[in-house]
Amino acid sequence: MTAPLRLGIAGLGTVGVGVVKIIRQKANMLADRSGRPIVITAVSARSRDKDRGVPLSDYAWEDDPIALAQRDDVDVFVELMGGSEGTAREATEAALAAGKDVVTANKALLAIHGHELAIAAEKVDRVIRFEAAVAGGIPVVKALTEGLAGNDITRIMGVMNGSCNYILTRMQNAGLTYEEVFEEANQLGYLEADPNLDVGGIDAGHKLALLSAIAYGTKVDFEGVELEGIQRVTIEDIEQAADMGYRIKLLGVAQRTGRGLEQRMSPCLVPSDSPLGQLEGGTNMVVIEGDEVGQIVLRGAGAGEGPTASAVLSDIVDIARGTRLATFGKPAEGLEAATSATSSASAPYYLRLELLDKPGALAQIATELGEAGISIDRMRQYGHAAQTAPVLIVTHKTTRSAIEDAIVGFKKTAVLASDPVAIRIEAV
Amino acid sequence: MTAPLRLGIAGLGTVGVGVVKIIRQKANMLADRSGRPIVITAVSARSRDKDRGVPLSDYAWEDDPIALAQRDDVDVFVELMGGSEGTAREATEAALAAGKDVVTANKALLAIHGHELAIAAEKVDRVIRFEAAVAGGIPVVKALTEGLAGNDITRIMGVMNGSCNYILTRMQNAGLTYEEVFEEANQLGYLEADPNLDVGGIDAGHKLALLSAIAYGTKVDFEGVELEGIQRVTIEDIEQAADMGYRIKLLGVAQRTGRGLEQRMSPCLVPSDSPLGQLEGGTNMVVIEGDEVGQIVLRGAGAGEGPTASAVLSDIVDIARGTRLATFGKPAEGLEAATSATSSASAPYYLRLELLDKPGALAQIATELGEAGISIDRMRQYGHAAQTAPVLIVTHKTTRSAIEDAIVGFKKTAVLASDPVAIRIEAV
Repeated sequence: MTAPLRLGIAGLGTVGVGVVKIIRQKANMLADRSGRPIVITAVSARSRDKDRGVPLSDYAWEDDPIALAQRDDVDVFVELMGGSEGTAREATEAALAAGKDVVTANKALLAIHGHELAIAAEKVDRVIRFEAAVAGGIPVVKALTEGLAGNDITRIMGVMNGSCNYILTRMQNAGLTYEEVFEEANQLGYLEADPNLDVGGIDAGHKLALLSAIAYGTKVDFEGVELEGIQRVTIEDIEQAADMGYRIKLLGVAQRTGRGLEQRMSPCLVPSDSPLGQLEGGTNMVVIEGDEVGQIVLRGAGAGEGPTASAVLSDIVDIARGTRLATFGKPAEGLEAATSATSSASAPYYLRLELLDKPGALAQIATELGEAGISIDRMRQYGHAAQTAPVLIVTHKTTRSAIEDAIVGFKKTAVLASDPVAIRIEAV
Repeated sequence: MTAPLRLGIAGLGTVGVGVVKIIRQKANMLADRSGRPIVITAVSARSRDKDRGVPLSDYAWEDDPIALAQRDDVDVFVELMGGSEGTAREATEAALAAGKDVVTANKALLAIHGHELAIAAEKVDRVIRFEAAVAGGIPVVKALTEGLAGNDITRIMGVMNGSCNYILTRMQNAGLTYEEVFEEANQLGYLEADPNLDVGGIDAGHKLALLSAIAYGTKVDFEGVELEGIQRVTIEDIEQAADMGYRIKLLGVAQRTGRGLEQRMSPCLVPSDSPLGQLEGGTNMVVIEGDEVGQIVLRGAGAGEGPTASAVLSDIVDIARGTRLATFGKPAEGLEAATSATSSASAPYYLRLELLDKPGALAQIATELGEAGISIDRMRQYGHAAQTAPVLIVTHKTTRSAIEDAIVGFKKTAVLASDPVAIRIEAV
């Protein structure tokens, strides 16, 4: 265990450069903690000539990450390229086939191909570690896989896309529209090249699917995640929800219900004074509930060079120390597919309706709610200068399908000035 | 790796019984996650006859925990008796000498004898794991030792004694005195048999010393922890600090300063709207700051059967999976003693003075502060019916010794109606 652990790093963007810097600057500390030196033998990236602010001449260069993954002087293939298909996938497969351990920050790759990759790793007795793929620097994969291994996990909740949380809190704090803040975030470089990965909830959905697989011991199932992005969240919803004591968050929730595994990534209301409600800007938070431990809350930076590199290093140090874990915490060969249960958990809902100023308008809405079996917890009607009156309703616990029935009913009345908004309120 | 992992459990109080229950009820889940069965072969406790609500007849009984620790059919000695001396210590030493791994919830034992025990474990290539010793169910030992292994830790802060936090928040919420709430907590069974372990900050100080040793790679040094309990916190301080936007917490802080390692466990003011400030009741919170990761906040139940047993199980599952770690994250043989630096980090302070109603009283206080080199950030004088006037002062950053100088100066004036109170304000 005193031979150096030799890394091949593919991808020298922000995270890759961060990893190289830590390994250069903290060689002694890492060797002390790992019981052996951690060294980089080879690197690979798209452009060899780019100045990345860190010397690379000590390392062999490979233009082809697949060749890097197969090098004899590499023990661990560190995949920091990203993307669920193409080179990242092929190089990861090649690394496993060549008997290398894999450390990756690639949530898309694992959310979509994680099960096959875990099987491939098991066949050759290698590990795939992915702390950096979920919630940046927060050691949540470790907490769930190891720290809470004695628990039946009852629910996981998380704000795991910092860009979306930035947009939502910025809308609230500055009173700006979604479009205005989206533009701002895009110009600040806070969004992915394809912004839909962020604002459509896909990136956060990938992360949720990974945590679900660990928590519930089922095959990772990104397809089973009910996805809704933040594009339709309006400043009116944010302000009026705040008025009722709530914040709107892009919240991931994974829980078992009587009907199966429910995984949702969607805008939700959470109480303003809860830890999730108070989360500002790009910070991430994951809440894990276990039958023994109760509620554990983990909070920290969800992205950025230092935090993400910190997570990559924790996986590398684990491997250097000899820690060997199944990819999702149990042998992949035995993992079963989850029964996907869409929106089966009941919850209160927030409804925002714009009603025409007609006698009996509110009575008609109340009737439709009653017919859908939904009872009202709180209602607020705002004064109005115009021809329409905003009405906010917080329901008692109900189901998504009852809400959908009610909305069909609302639309049959002649009192709606615009499409109703319905947002789930998550108990936190 | 498919042979069962065999446990000998010493101590069948709340936590021990919780561990037995989980192992009985979740045998399949644990075997799945560990890759091998986890079984109890023998137990030990003070009284054999007591009904603990869990069947024990499947397990061998040992009256003597040392005999338990030495049994051939025990792989892991699970020490849940507590106490830094006597049987717990002897049985732990016996277990290591007999080549057993050790899992313990015993913060006192490790805070005081952790270094020698770690050396003893290393000599026989065994591990000592102690997740349950710090902050109950929060996987903070794991987060620090493994999850943040790529970081230089710059500061650790923690509210790690739920009983003290219960007392302080209950005083605030109910407007009760320390003595009233202490009595209440004692009757509810929230306090240790020797309540000074809780309210004197000793228990929390043990936990801080353990986290410090991991974070800074130094010998565990409980003697180096500057300890101050909550016994002198008054309801006036709590209410007036709240008025200035702060909460009083029994806060542990460990950080390196230019002069060495500072470890403090003492009442501190933290902003009311910070995560630490918002912590209510018996919940624990640990804040870890690393140079790469920034600030990580971990929150959860700090005590109780389920949460503590959950932490014990995480260590057991790790051992079953083959994870082998040095007790404090680095080989103990190489750990050096920290240079202890008492109160060397500067901070703003909160001062509460009861002044006699004399002309120029405040001017004399201000003069003394100036002479001690302390400048005032904010000051508030309250209206007063009596002969004395409460004055609150928040200083700019200064040192403990400057504050002590100022207090000596205050006492030379003839304007104090009572002893001044000075509480550090921790930036969080």
